[in-house]
Amino acid sequence: MSQEKPLILVTNDDGITAPGIRHLIEVMNELGEVVVVAPEGAMSGQGHAITINNTLFLDEVKIDNGPQKEFKTNGTPVDCVKLAVDQVLPRKPDLLVSGINHGSNSSINIIYSGTMSAAVEGGIEGIPSIGFSLTTYKWDADFTAAKHFVRLIAKEVLKNNDNLPQPFILNVNIPYLPLEEIKGIRVGRQANAKWIESFDRRVNPHGREYFWLTGEFVNFDQGMDTDEYALQNGYVSVVPVQVDMTNYKLMEKLKNWKLEDE
Amino acid sequence: MSQEKPLILVTNDDGITAPGIRHLIEVMNELGEVVVVAPEGAMSGQGHAITINNTLFLDEVKIDNGPQKEFKTNGTPVDCVKLAVDQVLPRKPDLLVSGINHGSNSSINIIYSGTMSAAVEGGIEGIPSIGFSLTTYKWDADFTAAKHFVRLIAKEVLKNNDNLPQPFILNVNIPYLPLEEIKGIRVGRQANAKWIESFDRRVNPHGREYFWLTGEFVNFDQGMDTDEYALQNGYVSVVPVQVDMTNYKLMEKLKNWKLEDE
Repeated sequence: MSQEKPLILVTNDDGITAPGIRHLIEVMNELGEVVVVAPEGAMSGQGHAITINNTLFLDEVKIDNGPQKEFKTNGTPVDCVKLAVDQVLPRKPDLLVSGINHGSNSSINIIYSGTMSAAVEGGIEGIPSIGFSLTTYKWDADFTAAKHFVRLIAKEVLKNNDNLPQPFILNVNIPYLPLEEIKGIRVGRQANAKWIESFDRRVNPHGREYFWLTGEFVNFDQGMDTDEYALQNGYVSVVPVQVDMTNYKLMEKLKNWKLEDE
Repeated sequence: MSQEKPLILVTNDDGITAPGIRHLIEVMNELGEVVVVAPEGAMSGQGHAITINNTLFLDEVKIDNGPQKEFKTNGTPVDCVKLAVDQVLPRKPDLLVSGINHGSNSSINIIYSGTMSAAVEGGIEGIPSIGFSLTTYKWDADFTAAKHFVRLIAKEVLKNNDNLPQPFILNVNIPYLPLEEIKGIRVGRQANAKWIESFDRRVNPHGREYFWLTGEFVNFDQGMDTDEYALQNGYVSVVPVQVDMTNYKLMEKLKNWKLEDE
């Protein structure tokens, strides 16, 4: 990293006015020069969606008195990263942070999460990227402990900035506990868990049936090296993330299949 | 697999009336009992998006004279799989097929693709799942060769149905060539490639600036075992896909970092 202040891109999926991103911006302002490109509204569950069949707006906004530059878009979190890189930032940023998400993105949630998809997109772009999530949906949650760990982890990544493998992507989940009750940080793997959906079926005033997606999170993983285990035991969970989705074990197995034409 | 006909769930991201899914349904009708749950319109680039902040409709429709049952939704491809499993299907299907997508989903495209995200969701649900894509965006493309390989691969998966690891997810990309020019099938890995975006900036009739996402696909991977290599050399590419996004190599490295509080 050069002598100049690190350039930090901030985004999220809860929208640019969500408390989680406002707290994240506050911490990042201590660490570098901050540019925010974030969705104008809630984009939870957007996964790695991008906007192909529609147009995107990008408007500079001023939300508080901080020194950061801020832009809001009608796009998804991944669109935000792409717009930032191509249209807003003067150079490749030294760090991308996404969040602080209201709600956990541990385990399989990484796949559905707009917060983490923005971080993954940053990783694809060659930017060291961290997604931060707090394990509560409370809009007025106390972010004191979260901010402590955000600062600690972001500083460590910036310190190692010249020596990071690519892609460098972290999924950081912080248990919603008072700072003194958090036992530390655990680096681990994504737990084998899933959502068992159960749609809530209703009828609208015009007699048409409709559904709300709901579900129950089930953890099948007994391992003590998982993100779920860390969170349930009072630790901040750090899971490094890759973008190669190849299943190498299955690849070897498939080579024995008769997939050739005759 | 039991003696009864296999139950096959069909979905896509180009919408229920797209030629690609109509051809896919035709082939699946030869192999089992078919249920279609697909988006009513185009959902390209939706990634693993799910609908949390809106309601979903699910309407039975009749589009052609085939024996399949069909339902359209206003949801994403992943919503389609969730709705099918929870609201439509009498039991867990023996196979999920998604596509045939109009356009390649090789390499990093898997992360943005609604077609592949539906297959990934099927894998998470414990359903053997295959996403099929044809490397042309032509709406009136000739699907003859594609259907040949769809049939061949789907039959092989159904044949091995009792003995598949979980998750079982395949990303199948078929080069747009006449059948006799396709050299065979190659099982391989996801190439290391990315999109370099370049937004097309315009001004609308009201004077407001807006953007269209465009970009150039760049393959950094010289390997001969990748999906890109297979496609460029006239082979059908089969990449098995996982849902554990943990970067294990980086996990080991991070354990040497001073991430602990003091």
